[in-house]
Amino acid sequence: MTEHYFTEENSIETVNARMGPNTSPRLREVMTALVKHLHAFAKEVHLTQEEWWYGIDFLTRTGQITSGERQEFILLSDVLGFSMLVDAINNRRPIGATENTVFGPFHVEGAPVRQMGDTICLDGKGETCLFEGKVLDLDGNPIKGARIDVWSDNADGYYDVQQPGLQPKWNNRGIFITGEDGRYAFVGIKPVSYPIPDDGPVGQMLGHLGRHPYRPAHMHYLVTADGYQRLVTHTFVGNDKYLASDSVFGVKKSLVAPFEHLKDGATQWRSPFDFVLTPLDR
Amino acid sequence: MTEHYFTEENSIETVNARMGPNTSPRLREVMTALVKHLHAFAKEVHLTQEEWWYGIDFLTRTGQITSGERQEFILLSDVLGFSMLVDAINNRRPIGATENTVFGPFHVEGAPVRQMGDTICLDGKGETCLFEGKVLDLDGNPIKGARIDVWSDNADGYYDVQQPGLQPKWNNRGIFITGEDGRYAFVGIKPVSYPIPDDGPVGQMLGHLGRHPYRPAHMHYLVTADGYQRLVTHTFVGNDKYLASDSVFGVKKSLVAPFEHLKDGATQWRSPFDFVLTPLDR
Repeated sequence: MTEHYFTEENSIETVNARMGPNTSPRLREVMTALVKHLHAFAKEVHLTQEEWWYGIDFLTRTGQITSGERQEFILLSDVLGFSMLVDAINNRRPIGATENTVFGPFHVEGAPVRQMGDTICLDGKGETCLFEGKVLDLDGNPIKGARIDVWSDNADGYYDVQQPGLQPKWNNRGIFITGEDGRYAFVGIKPVSYPIPDDGPVGQMLGHLGRHPYRPAHMHYLVTADGYQRLVTHTFVGNDKYLASDSVFGVKKSLVAPFEHLKDGATQWRSPFDFVLTPLDR
Repeated sequence: MTEHYFTEENSIETVNARMGPNTSPRLREVMTALVKHLHAFAKEVHLTQEEWWYGIDFLTRTGQITSGERQEFILLSDVLGFSMLVDAINNRRPIGATENTVFGPFHVEGAPVRQMGDTICLDGKGETCLFEGKVLDLDGNPIKGARIDVWSDNADGYYDVQQPGLQPKWNNRGIFITGEDGRYAFVGIKPVSYPIPDDGPVGQMLGHLGRHPYRPAHMHYLVTADGYQRLVTHTFVGNDKYLASDSVFGVKKSLVAPFEHLKDGATQWRSPFDFVLTPLDR
């Protein structure tokens, strides 16, 4: 049985050989790879005992600040680019289709369905912006009955759920259903950049790494239609100063949208953007 | 700035390029490798969104059960062989020197210094065992003034600190100082195997992997002497049924000790073992 004893050299094989014969094939695959990469990491950097302790303490503090309202482990995954990577792996799209990005923690189910062209900004703050375009298939045909669920922060950089009582319910949220022409239009605000919560261990880590906690300004979209893949994405304000340094790596080049300043009229900006959905079988 | 946008292909480089110029060189080295291996893991197994959620929830539950008395993150590190690997990397020893193993969570500072030959078992439970041998240098010379701090579970499989009030204070613990001859001797019990705490997320994980939570029976040693490397180790009971399947991978072949059954006398077992210390400069 000597061959089962742990050594620095055989560590990966020894740990993985311990799994029982009834382990589900997928769990075996995932755990085998996890152990392999975890051990390879420690070996590559010659991780010290003190650094191991620091890591244990970091995870412990991350656990302590996590609550029903605050998910520091997701934040950790986000700032390491891990959330975006998992999103990318699971949402490879054909050329021409709109790309996915991270869902984020601020979507709320049950926003009101509004009339096309309505405003979603209920607190009167911020610079008004007309968002408009079409929902199309890969061949450029309009999709009827597409459901566009949108949400953004307000002019102070907070989502309504971050300020219960301070913002009107469903402020800067709404759902729009396309007609025959596939068109959508609504009036919101030109979103503003904001920091992710940075008063916990993840914020400290960003500080040690010389990274800021900001996300570039963006409008969230969840676009669904029968027969098409669910699209979770943002459009980003094109000249945002954090565009190339999003703290959660959510920016994709194809999602940077134009924001045109309108000289006349009540609405100050216009941001045109078409969404191209991918069929379920692609 | 387009080159900074995240893609599945450039994910590792994009995240690591974000570190600022004032990041400490060692933190940069460790984080670069961590991101590299973490992303490589997700890519290799094509981690799904559901599996990512499961991982976030697992870490969250691990955080929730962790307290001043219970360190589930260390337990997680232990059962993945990560604690043993870090120990091994940081305690490479020359041939002939006694090998290290994990410290474990049950050492307590300040155990009483006892006379050579004294008993450490204060609750009268278990099969008595004489532990004896020498503390030597690499050339086989005895080391005078070596401090041998020992601790084990009791016959029920619990350390005294796990049963405050139920076991006498300092039960199965003691410190012994060697004289000119480098000899040590004390009477304890033949230790018994016991499960690590398995009523939390880590125990559930072991269950899914078809692994038991037991550690083979062992006596803990912390041996220190001026001019020598600190030795943290166990001796294992040679015929223990969990010897080849220690839940935390602590067994090394060289640490399996003989336990001889004594036919006569008040003491039932004898376990001889010599400790060979490594000079600080090796």
